[in-house]
Amino acid sequence: MGDGPTGIVMMNLGGPKDLSEVQPFLLELFADREIIQLPMQDWLGPFIARRRTKSVQSNYRDIGGGSPILKWTEEQGRGMIERLDALSPQTAPHKFYVAFRYIQPKSEDALKAMKADGVKRAVAFTQYPQFSCSTTGSSLNELWRAAARTGLQDAFEWSVIDRWPTHPRFVEAMTKTVEDGLTQFSEDDRDDVLVVFSAHSLPMSVINRGDAYPGEIGATVHEVMERLGYGYEYMISYQSSVGPVPWLGPSTEQVVKDLGAKGRKNVLVVGIAFTSDHIETLHELDIEYGELAHEVGITNFKRAPALNGLPLFQDALAEVVAEHLASGEACSLQYGLRCPGCTNEQCRNILHPVAPYRRMRVGANGKP
Amino acid sequence: MGDGPTGIVMMNLGGPKDLSEVQPFLLELFADREIIQLPMQDWLGPFIARRRTKSVQSNYRDIGGGSPILKWTEEQGRGMIERLDALSPQTAPHKFYVAFRYIQPKSEDALKAMKADGVKRAVAFTQYPQFSCSTTGSSLNELWRAAARTGLQDAFEWSVIDRWPTHPRFVEAMTKTVEDGLTQFSEDDRDDVLVVFSAHSLPMSVINRGDAYPGEIGATVHEVMERLGYGYEYMISYQSSVGPVPWLGPSTEQVVKDLGAKGRKNVLVVGIAFTSDHIETLHELDIEYGELAHEVGITNFKRAPALNGLPLFQDALAEVVAEHLASGEACSLQYGLRCPGCTNEQCRNILHPVAPYRRMRVGANGKP
Repeated sequence: MGDGPTGIVMMNLGGPKDLSEVQPFLLELFADREIIQLPMQDWLGPFIARRRTKSVQSNYRDIGGGSPILKWTEEQGRGMIERLDALSPQTAPHKFYVAFRYIQPKSEDALKAMKADGVKRAVAFTQYPQFSCSTTGSSLNELWRAAARTGLQDAFEWSVIDRWPTHPRFVEAMTKTVEDGLTQFSEDDRDDVLVVFSAHSLPMSVINRGDAYPGEIGATVHEVMERLGYGYEYMISYQSSVGPVPWLGPSTEQVVKDLGAKGRKNVLVVGIAFTSDHIETLHELDIEYGELAHEVGITNFKRAPALNGLPLFQDALAEVVAEHLASGEACSLQYGLRCPGCTNEQCRNILHPVAPYRRMRVGANGKP
Repeated sequence: MGDGPTGIVMMNLGGPKDLSEVQPFLLELFADREIIQLPMQDWLGPFIARRRTKSVQSNYRDIGGGSPILKWTEEQGRGMIERLDALSPQTAPHKFYVAFRYIQPKSEDALKAMKADGVKRAVAFTQYPQFSCSTTGSSLNELWRAAARTGLQDAFEWSVIDRWPTHPRFVEAMTKTVEDGLTQFSEDDRDDVLVVFSAHSLPMSVINRGDAYPGEIGATVHEVMERLGYGYEYMISYQSSVGPVPWLGPSTEQVVKDLGAKGRKNVLVVGIAFTSDHIETLHELDIEYGELAHEVGITNFKRAPALNGLPLFQDALAEVVAEHLASGEACSLQYGLRCPGCTNEQCRNILHPVAPYRRMRVGANGKP
């Protein structure tokens, strides 16, 4: 055994595991000022959350009564640490902890469990392959706040895995899901398939302040297509936009409509920015856009399986962490780079970093 | 000698070579309905072009009285065909022809010169590495129209090189320009440099109908950064937006302002979507944003040299064409893929293609 235990905190959005958790989940989501800014948020946030509860519950009912994200994350975590102990014996034993953003287990739960397990060295490992302030950024800011709330701000030495959009094993695993998705088409139809890589959209205000997300989505997609020998037509689209502000497009929903109008018959949708099935794949893509595709005449509208329990993906997770631990670094160089338009003083912090790192200041005048 | 002559048509925007050409250039630009849609375009286009002439002339005066793009394209073309004759003797001799979109030499000039030279096999080679309907798409549509106008619609067998955003030699050449740009900083400052990859922006309406451009920009940038070992902070921004409609951001101008406010001192701007110097590098980046950077306190604001006469880039051009000719293909699979939101019946055509290719139809109902 090595210098462990090393704690690996797997950070993700999370989802309600049953219908009773839908409202608490929505309340937390609409309270997150780093994602959603509402006028009179303390009042309007809960109002919107409560008003949406029934329809969101109905969506979860359609997919079996809850989100499978905790189940998959735990399976991924088990596979990851098993491989990690072999890959990086000097930091073994490794233990994983789940920190969801809007539902249990939350950052507090992960932190307390790590403390109880005697962890001193902790890695905050985003489960979003491509970085956005709206996803990984919000999760990390919450993690540091939770450490303060629980009095555990001095308990761990931290490093951060903030992005891995082009890690070769991740790309290999994602490519495998596309290949598996393609087997759903007859050999005759396969050449005709258009692969639509769909990622969660972001408001243009986030894009325009300098978020790295769309560039990193482009990078992942091209790496996957290179492995496929650019043998299929493909495109990128963005799903799940809500509300009246402009979001990054093209919208997946509109793309489905337009492809139908143009007579496309074979479409494979690939969730490129999320590693497990969740409401946006199981309901939005499979059910809503599946029905829409049927209406507009796309006869073969299929989705590539999410990474979920794919062993190759557990290899990827373990390799990403092992390489990170071996580097001795606190984070990627990119993590310290604030969005030029950022005004959030919390952004890009690391609590007790394991090594020095450079963080761009807000409104600083000296060398960053 | 091989089966040639093979004609390589180098397609690009073009630029006025002296001040007298500024107005004709602007008149053509504002008449291009594939790029700019104006109410009463036949009247408003010339009005805007004439009103802008003086200030644009002044910009060209600042950079020496004209655009260097013809000079560089011809130098690139000479280097390319010299290498091509060696790389692909079976299609030799190769001859290059310049087809600018808004100024001489135009598509007509290239077509007539090819006819006079006895060319039968022609390659339409975009000089925009990343595909957009606004650049490569418009140039190709114009090329086929020009063939009809000149009665040369049956004169050549065509194929199209429609994009090469991640060609390894292109990435290598682009990386070389970044490395050359970095030498402008003292060794002390170099670690602190933020590399800003700036590309020409596009209206959100173009992005939202499904243009491939931002994804391909992301792909090029990550390939370059991978070659640099991700050893510098970097980001993508978009320049040169005009008019009242929303464009893709973050805007390079705003990024410069914000970086100044955050105290960044060392910034290297890299033009990632254009292969030669032109008014957007020499005036907008160097002069306008250079002055802005000075005002906001970015003490070392530098630009990486454009590819221009770099021999490595001529290697890249030759390899791209040689690989294309060896493939026997009419175009990339992506070329036939219309933007889902496309309503332009001219898009994605190839006149007399050298091989069959699949083109998605507008409003078709059968198999594309």
